[in-house]
Amino acid sequence: MLSKNKIKFIQSLSRKKVRDQEQLFLVEGNKIVLESIDSDFGIEMICATPEFSDRFFADKNLQCELIECSEDEIKKASLLQNPQQALALVKMPTPELSLQKATDKLFLALDFIQDPGNMGTIIRIADWFGIRDIICSQNTTDCFSPKVIQASMGAIFRTSIHYLNLEESLLKANHLDIPVYGAFLEGENIYQSPLSPNGILVMGNEGNGISEQIERFIDHKIHIPSFAGKENGSESLNVAVATSICCSEFKRRTIKK
Amino acid sequence: MLSKNKIKFIQSLSRKKVRDQEQLFLVEGNKIVLESIDSDFGIEMICATPEFSDRFFADKNLQCELIECSEDEIKKASLLQNPQQALALVKMPTPELSLQKATDKLFLALDFIQDPGNMGTIIRIADWFGIRDIICSQNTTDCFSPKVIQASMGAIFRTSIHYLNLEESLLKANHLDIPVYGAFLEGENIYQSPLSPNGILVMGNEGNGISEQIERFIDHKIHIPSFAGKENGSESLNVAVATSICCSEFKRRTIKK
Repeated sequence: MLSKNKIKFIQSLSRKKVRDQEQLFLVEGNKIVLESIDSDFGIEMICATPEFSDRFFADKNLQCELIECSEDEIKKASLLQNPQQALALVKMPTPELSLQKATDKLFLALDFIQDPGNMGTIIRIADWFGIRDIICSQNTTDCFSPKVIQASMGAIFRTSIHYLNLEESLLKANHLDIPVYGAFLEGENIYQSPLSPNGILVMGNEGNGISEQIERFIDHKIHIPSFAGKENGSESLNVAVATSICCSEFKRRTIKK
Repeated sequence: MLSKNKIKFIQSLSRKKVRDQEQLFLVEGNKIVLESIDSDFGIEMICATPEFSDRFFADKNLQCELIECSEDEIKKASLLQNPQQALALVKMPTPELSLQKATDKLFLALDFIQDPGNMGTIIRIADWFGIRDIICSQNTTDCFSPKVIQASMGAIFRTSIHYLNLEESLLKANHLDIPVYGAFLEGENIYQSPLSPNGILVMGNEGNGISEQIERFIDHKIHIPSFAGKENGSESLNVAVATSICCSEFKRRTIKK
């Protein structure tokens, strides 16, 4: 059974302040709950219907509190419109950033991404392209908010997301001779630019792009050209879409022929 | 002034049935209203505040009814959370599909895309990459719904969207020797596949991909490989993201070196 207090507590995790205090975040949905259990993340508590529990947890050695409850109780605690049979409270990881790794791997850096849907989609894209580290400016939307978790489709469990002073991180990268790329509306045509298999790719805010403070640290300004021709196309691409195109182009070049 | 009846009528355009009957759709937001006026689409009516009207319509020879009204009245009629100073009722176009054009241009085809946000983003991507024709299966979400219009960011005015029997269209394409590509979770690595500058690229449903009925007409199955390696990444990409990566790869190949 799920007590009123527990329901209240679960719901309070919709607030960043509470998440930070408790160092916990909420994961909802059958598939993503199972992914959380199989991940390296610590689980504080799982709420699931007895059917779900019997089916999926019987052969698992769960290391956390398991509360069996009705679908109705999950519905009460849920922040989703269509809750499922399980939710989990997951411990926030404390990943350490080793910039040194960017001497042979590609990192992503986000400068003030605001929309949780974009954020989640970007995490999913990073996961697809094998990018394991995402550095976020401190004003980037919280990756542990329920909307981001949903949009990331489980990719949150396979990426290390670092909220840091982005300027300082990029300054360090400059000192380490790690190439820093940034996506701009003007810059070198990405398809014709030399791209290294390692480095940091910076993506900017939805409305304003990469900020001036961050621009200073960027060695290579790249842009995705429009093919709309004289007919004048859209002015810009959605930032998650632009991220996917950039990652695709970086990673394509690493394929051995 | 905006009468109660007009407000009711504007709101009724949130329903596909009414849109189809009236052959009109609703466009909201200052920027996109201005784009609609500059497009080839016919405008039935514009509602705008006097300030907006003075600023933007003074030197335009508007060919439609213009109703000046207060922001409050626009708010009443609006389907948005944060309405702006203008909205327009735009006439649905009746584009004619010339498949023959796919002998030297790239078309996009959508097989049962359900999510309006994805649909709008895909239209914006098509516009960016200079793809002027999108063929949609009849069960694909309506491109004139308010959510699609918003997500398309004006790209709706620069693309021809054809709701047709997709099977018949692809069968014709097969007969015309127009290459038909389809994005699958399994298929030839897109980065290593020959891609022609023309043809039809089919993208499938969010959950189920391309349907069996449509698969039969596809000459070239392509897929975007994951770079997640042994760590096992996400199972799939969002369909709009996958569309952007595929379009990027097709169009990149057309750049003259």
